[in-house]
Order: sequence, then structure tokens, then C-alpha cells
Amino acid sequence: MEFRAPAPENAAPLTAAQVASMLGGQVDGDAEVRISAVSGLASARDDAASYWLPRTAVETCAAAAVLVLPSDTTGGSALPEALLRVPARIEVARPDLAAALLAQHFELAVPRWIGIHERAFVDPSAEVGPGCTIQAGSWIGPGCKIGAGCVIHPNVVLEAGTELGPGCVVGANSVLGSDGFGYVWSGEKHEKVPQQGIVQVGAGVEIGASSTIDRGTYDSTVIGDGCILDNQVQVGHNCRLGRFVVLCAQVGLSGSTEVGDGAVLGGRAATVGHLRVGAGVRMAGASVATKDVPDGATVGGYPAWDIKKETRVIARMRRLIRD
Amino acid sequence: MEFRAPAPENAAPLTAAQVASMLGGQVDGDAEVRISAVSGLASARDDAASYWLPRTAVETCAAAAVLVLPSDTTGGSALPEALLRVPARIEVARPDLAAALLAQHFELAVPRWIGIHERAFVDPSAEVGPGCTIQAGSWIGPGCKIGAGCVIHPNVVLEAGTELGPGCVVGANSVLGSDGFGYVWSGEKHEKVPQQGIVQVGAGVEIGASSTIDRGTYDSTVIGDGCILDNQVQVGHNCRLGRFVVLCAQVGLSGSTEVGDGAVLGGRAATVGHLRVGAGVRMAGASVATKDVPDGATVGGYPAWDIKKETRVIARMRRLIRD
Amino acid sequence: MEFRAPAPENAAPLTAAQVASMLGGQVDGDAEVRISAVSGLASARDDAASYWLPRTAVETCAAAAVLVLPSDTTGGSALPEALLRVPARIEVARPDLAAALLAQHFELAVPRWIGIHERAFVDPSAEVGPGCTIQAGSWIGPGCKIGAGCVIHPNVVLEAGTELGPGCVVGANSVLGSDGFGYVWSGEKHEKVPQQGIVQVGAGVEIGASSTIDRGTYDSTVIGDGCILDNQVQVGHNCRLGRFVVLCAQVGLSGSTEVGDGAVLGGRAATVGHLRVGAGVRMAGASVATKDVPDGATVGGYPAWDIKKETRVIARMRRLIRD
Repeated sequence: MEFRAPAPENAAPLTAAQVASMLGGQVDGDAEVRISAVSGLASARDDAASYWLPRTAVETCAAAAVLVLPSDTTGGSALPEALLRVPARIEVARPDLAAALLAQHFELAVPRWIGIHERAFVDPSAEVGPGCTIQAGSWIGPGCKIGAGCVIHPNVVLEAGTELGPGCVVGANSVLGSDGFGYVWSGEKHEKVPQQGIVQVGAGVEIGASSTIDRGTYDSTVIGDGCILDNQVQVGHNCRLGRFVVLCAQVGLSGSTEVGDGAVLGGRAATVGHLRVGAGVRMAGASVATKDVPDGATVGGYPAWDIKKETRVIARMRRLIRD
Repeated sequence: MEFRAPAPENAAPLTAAQVASMLGGQVDGDAEVRISAVSGLASARDDAASYWLPRTAVETCAAAAVLVLPSDTTGGSALPEALLRVPARIEVARPDLAAALLAQHFELAVPRWIGIHERAFVDPSAEVGPGCTIQAGSWIGPGCKIGAGCVIHPNVVLEAGTELGPGCVVGANSVLGSDGFGYVWSGEKHEKVPQQGIVQVGAGVEIGASSTIDRGTYDSTVIGDGCILDNQVQVGHNCRLGRFVVLCAQVGLSGSTEVGDGAVLGGRAATVGHLRVGAGVRMAGASVATKDVPDGATVGGYPAWDIKKETRVIARMRRLIRD
Repeated sequence: MEFRAPAPENAAPLTAAQVASMLGGQVDGDAEVRISAVSGLASARDDAASYWLPRTAVETCAAAAVLVLPSDTTGGSALPEALLRVPARIEVARPDLAAALLAQHFELAVPRWIGIHERAFVDPSAEVGPGCTIQAGSWIGPGCKIGAGCVIHPNVVLEAGTELGPGCVVGANSVLGSDGFGYVWSGEKHEKVPQQGIVQVGAGVEIGASSTIDRGTYDSTVIGDGCILDNQVQVGHNCRLGRFVVLCAQVGLSGSTEVGDGAVLGGRAATVGHLRVGAGVRMAGASVATKDVPDGATVGGYPAWDIKKETRVIARMRRLIRD
């Protein structure tokens, strides 16, 4: 295991003009001001760029530059006075996205560990692609396949047969490939249904800390390309997630849940399993789907239904006690 | 630590007649067709047995055999056409249970690790019974007692004094014996109440990944024989679970909860503590018990009450906004 | 790493008179009875002290002594007969607090591990104060700063830069400093917002098992002095907790939640983020704050509001189906 600085040149400061060029924007102000970091509006130092979205209040801002919408696309929301005093405004179509990309640029200069730590356990039958980081305390079981450039944080467990596509990140203490919760009551005890399937994770998937994804009973539990899972997420056996699904913290998917492409499940949302959450669905935090949710729906409540109706019902209920 | 194949003979294919004999069933069709695996109906290959329960739709099935109810006990639900074309139907009283037992038979042929991994930490004062598996990264504290044949997955922590009966399984990254959450506000700070009790787990208990069971304050937290706990379950200090209790994923039991034999708590069900969930109770997912639940009740909602009433209230509430 | 008994003299039994003196109380009964442990009322042995609070039923009690309120301050709640037969009653202003302090006294006699276990990973650039315990399997990343006398249980992960004040406890398998869940949809994928901040934990903070605290995006996630967090708690990026905050098990704080001094969030309470839970607030278990909660409020429900109103609404709703 060794530290590697994939792009030390990325540590060099950029001028506002260079940043604008990189991000496809225009400079208003001092095009030569130098930027070497990305920061929040309130805490930015004078070498940092920050970003502003309409209707965000700003008292003061010490940044070198601020990424903003082009002045004719702010929907009438005037730039706060404080931002007119920042040396440079860099107009871009998506300030939040531009800030993320700029931060990614600078982050490539930060050295990071590459390789398999001597205190990781990697079964001899596991395959680990080039450029991976597997930290101390992680456990990679027999037959696992890990694509190129994955980052496995400390104390992660990939049980036997787990597959990760290239470019995945697994947060500390997460477990992939644990046995699904399958038992049949025999009249005398809970007989275990052996869990023979695996967990298959696509490319570019990022999983937070202390999440758990169970292996399939007979087939695979599948996490599609580009999904992002936050901390303490639980995915039951035989679930199948499409691409770019977002599962916020503490979400719980019961077994055999299907989730369509691009669905976003708010914090602690849940499903009872054996159902489908459609593509592009948005589930409110702590809502519980008990039946299929159609593509594109925005739902809340338990059982989950149209979020607007849920909101109206809550309001109506609470008026019941108005004296 | 070594791989052991407890029953290599179990890898041999069985004829449908042999399977029927083993499971107490009858063959309809080709009694000589060979079976060497158990699989789902849709994904079964031609060497696998699957199982069917009434009212399950089946388009095609490539299995060698399918476990079904005796033809006179299906309650009028006709066997799908596709299953009449499978070489053999094996009639058994409990197809789901039979499939689990058959899968267990074949699984015994899969070699698995036995022993204490050199990267596990086992305190010298801990007692580990014969035939146990303790995987790398697990931590077995002073005074722990682990019964024969237990399987401890990687990165499990058993804090000091934890006791497991024979035949238990603890999933990766679970923690047993963590301090209970006991503090008393002194007027100046939260004074810790030292947690002196232990966790006592009975025989044949299976615990999922990333679950936590706190030690008792003065006495023990008790998990009865044959209980099954899913992933991310939290059991507070001084809880006492009877036998064969089922806690689905993300369940949270506050301190001093008693749970009677055979109770089933759905995903993310919870209790406020210092109460009793009776024997045989069924709690709906995400319901919250705030007082004792009588034996045999089926409850939902928060506070948890009769599930039928809860369902009616939800329906009634939602009609409030019908225009 | 070595066992250390910081105060072996604390193992010596104390007379009831000595205990009363230590705790600022008065003995009623046998001032010479000897006490060498603290225990529950029902399970106490004849060398133990227990404590009683008004309206607690007691059938029998074998303890040597029981900590009780002064007889003129019990608000008319008579001491159970069984406690009149205990050799000594020790009258103190706060029996529960006195019992905790007495248990702490005896606990100091129990030897415990001090030092950094050889199987812990501590990055060379991390700073660890004197008297710390860092157990096997824990991972202390680059630049971490750990104050004097902290106890890090097994398999804890402190990602790079995490800071703990003196006297903190981190329960097994918890993760501090994991990346916050920050992404921006680019139209093609979820672009990661690099999480550059750290986690700053104050003095005397106690964190349970399997909890997760994300690092800040640009600035710090802050946990104030004396906070106590139970198991499976999730704290999102950029949260700021004041002093002595209590987060019970499975609480989930979305990003940028502020929590004022002394607030108590019941089990599985949650916030949607970018809001403030005021000082001294009490949130009911499983309630969800969707907007600021004013100082001192007691709230429940989802969205969280006045707990009394919530209780009335629930009762009213449930009457809707009364036939």
C-alpha cells in the first residue's frame, strides 16, 4: 500500500479565467484572481471559490470568486450585495455542479492510499482489479470480483461471491453479501433457507458507511450502475435497483423490491418488498411503500400515496382539534 | 483455520424418488430425473428442483422437478400449465419447507471455514466450543462463552462476558454486549450508569449483519433459543426475548422490553421499552408499541393497536379529503 | 496494551455510613451493613445497594441497602413494605444519581485495557493523547487527534482528520468522518461533491455502537461537549450539536441540522436537515422535524409539532371509526 498523488499538478492555483474556461463559463470582474480551493459561502477564504444559488441569503463573503448563474437566468433573483464585492463572479449554467467539478479537480492533488493494506483480508480466490484501495480490516471473501479503481474503506465486509463494477466506493463498516433473511417455520423451529445468490454491484456505485446489502436467495441482489446509497441503508435479498437510484440514510428495502432508474428515496423511506418503485419516483422521508409506485410519482405517507394528498390529509387531520 | 466439507457425499445428485423419500412426498412424473440444486421457479436450470405455492403465476419453468402440494390440497388453485411440463412434480405437505430442507442438504457439501482465524482477536479468558468458526477481524472479549458450532462472521464484536448458546450465527459487523444507554443527569452532565450485566444468547439463534444488542445494566439482556434477528436490529439493555422470536430488519427495542415466544416484529417495528409484547404477537412494519401488547394480537400504527382498526382509520382519514 | 486497575482500593466494601457520607445522605437502619456492589431491586444480593423511586412496586428485596428519597420528600408515596425490611435505607436527594455514582466508584476497581492494541491501525500522523484505549480492529486515519483518556472500542473507524476531545467513548463498529452524502446530478450521473470538512467531537462525548457521523462538506460536523449518542445513530454532514444533547438509538439527523444544548431526541426521531432543533427541546420517538423547533418545545408526530396536539389528533382520528 502506498500513497499516490494521481495529479500533483492539480494543486496549482487557477485564475478565474482558467476556472471559467474549464467549466464553460464567463468571468465578471478580476479574471486574474487566483483560486486554489472550493469552500462554503460563509467560510470561504480569499483563495477559494464558492457558489451561489438564487434566493440564498449572504451577509459577507471573503471568497476570491463565486460561481453564479448568468445574470439573465436568475429568474429575477438579484445577486446579493456581498457577492458584488467578491473579486470575480464566474457565470455558469449550473453553479452547484461547477463547484463540485472544481472541487474534484483540486482533490485529485490530495495524495491517497492505493493498494491492498497488509491488514486487509483478501481470499486468494478473490479478483481485485488494478488501482483499487482496500483498507485495513476489510474482508474480501472467496470468489469476490472487484473492478478497477474501487475504494474499499476500513472494516468493510464483502461476503463470498460479491461483485463490484469498476469505480465503486464502499464506506467503512458496510457489509455486502450477508445472508438474506429467509426462514420457514417448520412447526418446531425457523428452518433456514440457504442463501445461494450473490450481490452484483454495477459501475461507479457509491455506498456509505454501515450499510448492508443481502445476497439473493437463489439469484442475485442487483445494484445498477451509478447508484448512490447513504449510511445505514438496508437492502434485502433479491432486490433489484436500476441505474442512478438514490437511497438516503436509513432507507430500508424489504426483499424482492425493484427500483427503477433514477428513483430517489428520502431518508428512512421503506418498502414492504415484492413490489416495484418506478423509474424517477420520489419517495418522501420515512414513507413506506406497500404496493407498486408508478413511474414518475412523488409519494409520501404510510401506505405511500400521492404526496400532495398526504399533505392535505395531515393538514385536515390536524384541523380536527382546532377549537 | 481450514476448509472443511462436512458431507461431501451431499454433492451427489438425487433422483426425484430419492428426494420424495427424504421429504416424505410422492412423485408424479419421472421418478428418475436427477436433482442437484434448489432454485427459483423462473431461474431454475434442468438439474434443479423448485417449489410452487398456490396462486403463484408461472410462465415457464426449466426445472427438473417442482415441489408442490398434493393435488387434493391446493384449495382449488390449479397447477400452472408450465409446471405440468416439468419432468417431475414432488407432492409434499409444505413445499416451501421442503425446498429449504433440500437446499440445506445440498449446502452441506459446500466446504466452509472452520476454526478461529489468526486475525480474529479472542481474549485468553474466553471459552470457544468445538466446531466454531470465528472469522478475521472479529473481537471476542474477556469472559465470553461461545457454544459449540457457532459461526461468527467477520468484524463481529462480542464485548466482555457475552454468552452464545450452541449453533448460533452472528452476521458481519454486529455488536453484542455494547454498553446500554444509561445515564442520569446530575445537573451538570450526563453521569454514566455503569452497565454491569451481560448479553445471554440461547441456542440456535441467528443474528444478521450490523445489528447491536446492548448488555444489561445490572442483570442480563436475554435472547431466547431459536430467535432470528435480521440486519440493523437494535436491542436495548435489559430486554428479554422468549423463544423463536422474529425481529425483521431495522427493528428497535428500547430498554427493558419483553417479547413473548414466537412474536414476529415486522421491519422497523419498535417499542418504547418497559413493556411486554406478548407471545405470538404480530407487529406490522414500522409500528411502535407504547404499552403492553396482549398475547396473539396483530397490531399496527403508532401507538400500536389492532391492525384492522389501524387500517380502517387510515382509510377513513384519507377519505377526509375526497372532494 | 495492558490491563490497569486505576483504583484497586475501590474494590473494598463500604459500610452504609460510608456510602451515605460519600453521597451526602443519611442512614436509616444498620449503618454498619457492608456494600460492595450496586444492583437492581429484584436481583440484588445481600452485599449490594439498590435504589428506589416513588411508585415503583417492590415485592421482595434482598439488598443490603436501598437508596431512597428523604421520607419527607416522597410526595406521599409510601416506601414499600419490602424496603422497610432491608438492613439500611440511605436517604439521598437523587437516588438514581446516587446509585450511578456509587456504581462508578466500584467500577474503578475493575481492571481495564489501557493503550493501543497492536492490531489497531493508527496512522503515523494521528495524535493520541495519554491514557487512551484503542482496541483491536480500530482504524485511526491520517491527521486524527484524540484527546486524553478516550476509549475507542473494537472495529471503530475514525476517517482522516477526525478530532475527539478528552474523555470520549466511541462504541464498537462506529464510524466518524465518513463522507457526507453530497452529489449533484449532472444530467448523466451523480457527480460527487468532495467532502473536505472533518468531524469535531468535544470533551466527554459518549457514542454507542454502530453509529455514523459524516464529515462536513467544507466545514466541520460538530458534536458538542458532553453529548451522548446511542447505537445506530446517523448524523449527516455539517450538523452542529450543542452541549449535552441526547440522541437515542436509531436517530437520524439529515445534513446541516443544528441541535441546541440539552435537547433530547427520542429513539428514531429524525430531522429533514437545514433546520434547528432548539435548546432543551424534547422530540418524541420516531417523530420527524421538518422545520425549526423552538427552544424548550416538546414535540411529536410527522411533521413534528406540539406533543399534546399530536396526542389529541391521534385520539380524535381513532374515534372516527368508533361505531
